[in-house]
Amino acid sequence: VFKVDWDAADAEKGGYDYFMHKEIHEQPKALRDTMTSRISAENEDIVLDKIKLGKDELKNINKVYIVACGTAYHAGLIGKYVIEKYARIPVEADIASEFRYRNPIVDENTLLIVVSQSGETADTLAAMRLVRESKGRVMAITNVIGSTISREADDVMYTWAGPEIAVASTKAYTTQLTCMYMIGLHLGLLKETITKDFYNRIRTALLRSPEDIEFVLKQEEKIREFAYNNFKVEDMFFLGRGLDNYVAMEGSLKMKEISYIHSEAYPAGELKHGTIALVEEGTIIIALCTQEEVFEKMMSNIKEVKARGAYILAFAQEKNKAIEKEADQVFYIKDTEDDLASIGTVVYLQLLAYYLSVARGCDVDKPRNLAKSVTVE
Amino acid sequence: VFKVDWDAADAEKGGYDYFMHKEIHEQPKALRDTMTSRISAENEDIVLDKIKLGKDELKNINKVYIVACGTAYHAGLIGKYVIEKYARIPVEADIASEFRYRNPIVDENTLLIVVSQSGETADTLAAMRLVRESKGRVMAITNVIGSTISREADDVMYTWAGPEIAVASTKAYTTQLTCMYMIGLHLGLLKETITKDFYNRIRTALLRSPEDIEFVLKQEEKIREFAYNNFKVEDMFFLGRGLDNYVAMEGSLKMKEISYIHSEAYPAGELKHGTIALVEEGTIIIALCTQEEVFEKMMSNIKEVKARGAYILAFAQEKNKAIEKEADQVFYIKDTEDDLASIGTVVYLQLLAYYLSVARGCDVDKPRNLAKSVTVE
Repeated sequence: VFKVDWDAADAEKGGYDYFMHKEIHEQPKALRDTMTSRISAENEDIVLDKIKLGKDELKNINKVYIVACGTAYHAGLIGKYVIEKYARIPVEADIASEFRYRNPIVDENTLLIVVSQSGETADTLAAMRLVRESKGRVMAITNVIGSTISREADDVMYTWAGPEIAVASTKAYTTQLTCMYMIGLHLGLLKETITKDFYNRIRTALLRSPEDIEFVLKQEEKIREFAYNNFKVEDMFFLGRGLDNYVAMEGSLKMKEISYIHSEAYPAGELKHGTIALVEEGTIIIALCTQEEVFEKMMSNIKEVKARGAYILAFAQEKNKAIEKEADQVFYIKDTEDDLASIGTVVYLQLLAYYLSVARGCDVDKPRNLAKSVTVE
Repeated sequence: VFKVDWDAADAEKGGYDYFMHKEIHEQPKALRDTMTSRISAENEDIVLDKIKLGKDELKNINKVYIVACGTAYHAGLIGKYVIEKYARIPVEADIASEFRYRNPIVDENTLLIVVSQSGETADTLAAMRLVRESKGRVMAITNVIGSTISREADDVMYTWAGPEIAVASTKAYTTQLTCMYMIGLHLGLLKETITKDFYNRIRTALLRSPEDIEFVLKQEEKIREFAYNNFKVEDMFFLGRGLDNYVAMEGSLKMKEISYIHSEAYPAGELKHGTIALVEEGTIIIALCTQEEVFEKMMSNIKEVKARGAYILAFAQEKNKAIEKEADQVFYIKDTEDDLASIGTVVYLQLLAYYLSVARGCDVDKPRNLAKSVTVE
């Protein structure tokens, strides 16, 4: 007899050291699976399987809430951005544990979108029941077929991410983003608040997003190197404006969850209203600069923190090489529509959190104190 | 000849070591000045001087934005809570540097409330001009008569806080809160969404808030003692739910600004979705537990972080002695309406930041990298 030195879990890691690493690499496929049958290069239509919300139902919707917890809430913030921009309906993204206790203004003209990987998140479920009691319509974005949330919603959109084992969510998040973009486009088309031309531009960029991730994954070694050179850091700040700010929030949460670095995301324009007091010689600043409209503003913010001695790790689109004038190190995503820059950027931030966690000797897949789904309140 | 060892600035500190300390103590007077002539114990009416927004103008308002930066934004979050609850109009509080670039949905039925101590904050002013271009109505809450923002707004409500010299705002913030409560009550009365009885209860509690602050100021020595025993701390978390969450955000900002401790506020329900990974033996948690509806939920959250070795400093109303079962140390505010608990609680948090800053040898009134008003973008 000899002892076989692996167990079922190891086998399923398919050669990766951690599930999280495997799941980061599964993202191009997960995104393709989530888009297939819904949008395609050949067909201009958008087909949202179990979503029965059509033009008639949408006519009276005057308010959308997107309610979720943790990482799914961060997908909700991007959903807010996209739906408001494409469909011109006021959207409020809220944390489930806050939403349910604040007596929100809800009626039969309210659409609630809940986002939950497991479909069992307790606070999200409670929020959903609250809105249903007030006759609001509920759409769910979830990864688990037959989950409680999927069963109780009026409309369901599944993320086809496959099982996510690591506690820190990666492919569930990026597939939730993919759903948000498709919902935004769908509502924009129904309400005729976007042109066919705009729709096609975003659709094309969205269909290309798995390749954008593949491009980022090829830079992995450089992220690993940065992590091993900086793993002793104890504080870190993520800055961005607009869409980048929401991506920064997710990047910072990832960092906290698995590396235990006290990271914090801040809208870059708020720096001077307080947080800049914490910046000193050697402070690491993660600056997201993917949005054309606020690119110059971000450059100014970078100058401000650099003047206080910060080390700037910037993320930008390839076309924006000007960033190299100010940042200490730059990682590029492939040029894309600004609205879609979130997807490539967040994969960099996932890798950054992952390698810092590994370098610090943390248990990447099972961070202390955390559970995969929070099914108690 | 002999050298006089004080200058004009010292003289104006009136015996206090720092302007911030003086300004914390001026809050009971500042609140009384802000309420006088607007609400009183004798008169059931509410008189909002320069606010011309009456019943007719209000009829068509279907959306309120409250836009500001830094501390004033935190006053805006409480304004959102109060106005939605009292007047049942959807309110969105937003950071000025984000709001102006995100193409917000604004028309002639939009009311924008801007909050700025100086009345000159660049991003806030830009947000205001944007809304005016789209025919929205603008109400300003400011401390400076004749400031640009006060001149360009349709309606102005002055905080009568007097000159605020310290960079970290204290009395400007609590008088902004006072204005928010009065505006909430005013709109609630106009829309008849609150009863006269409810109005009177909140009005009475509001009129009593200067005494609530005086009560807190009497506990100053105990806060000082805590600060001197814990001044070496480098990270700190503020937790709360609902209204307490917004107060926690302001407490955390104060801490960052003047003590350079990396503090962060988190909605307590989000703990399990990430931040709890950072909690370890000896981590200091500031737990705000002033809200009856979520008191038990806060008790559970406290148990969770305590089980990971955290030290809990809790803030609660006097009637909620049950908190002593879980918290390591409790500071009480006088019993009041839950909606008004913000005022007493934040004064504790101001004192906590102040004494930690002094104990750490920081320049309290002029923290590094910060200016009093941010008049550039």
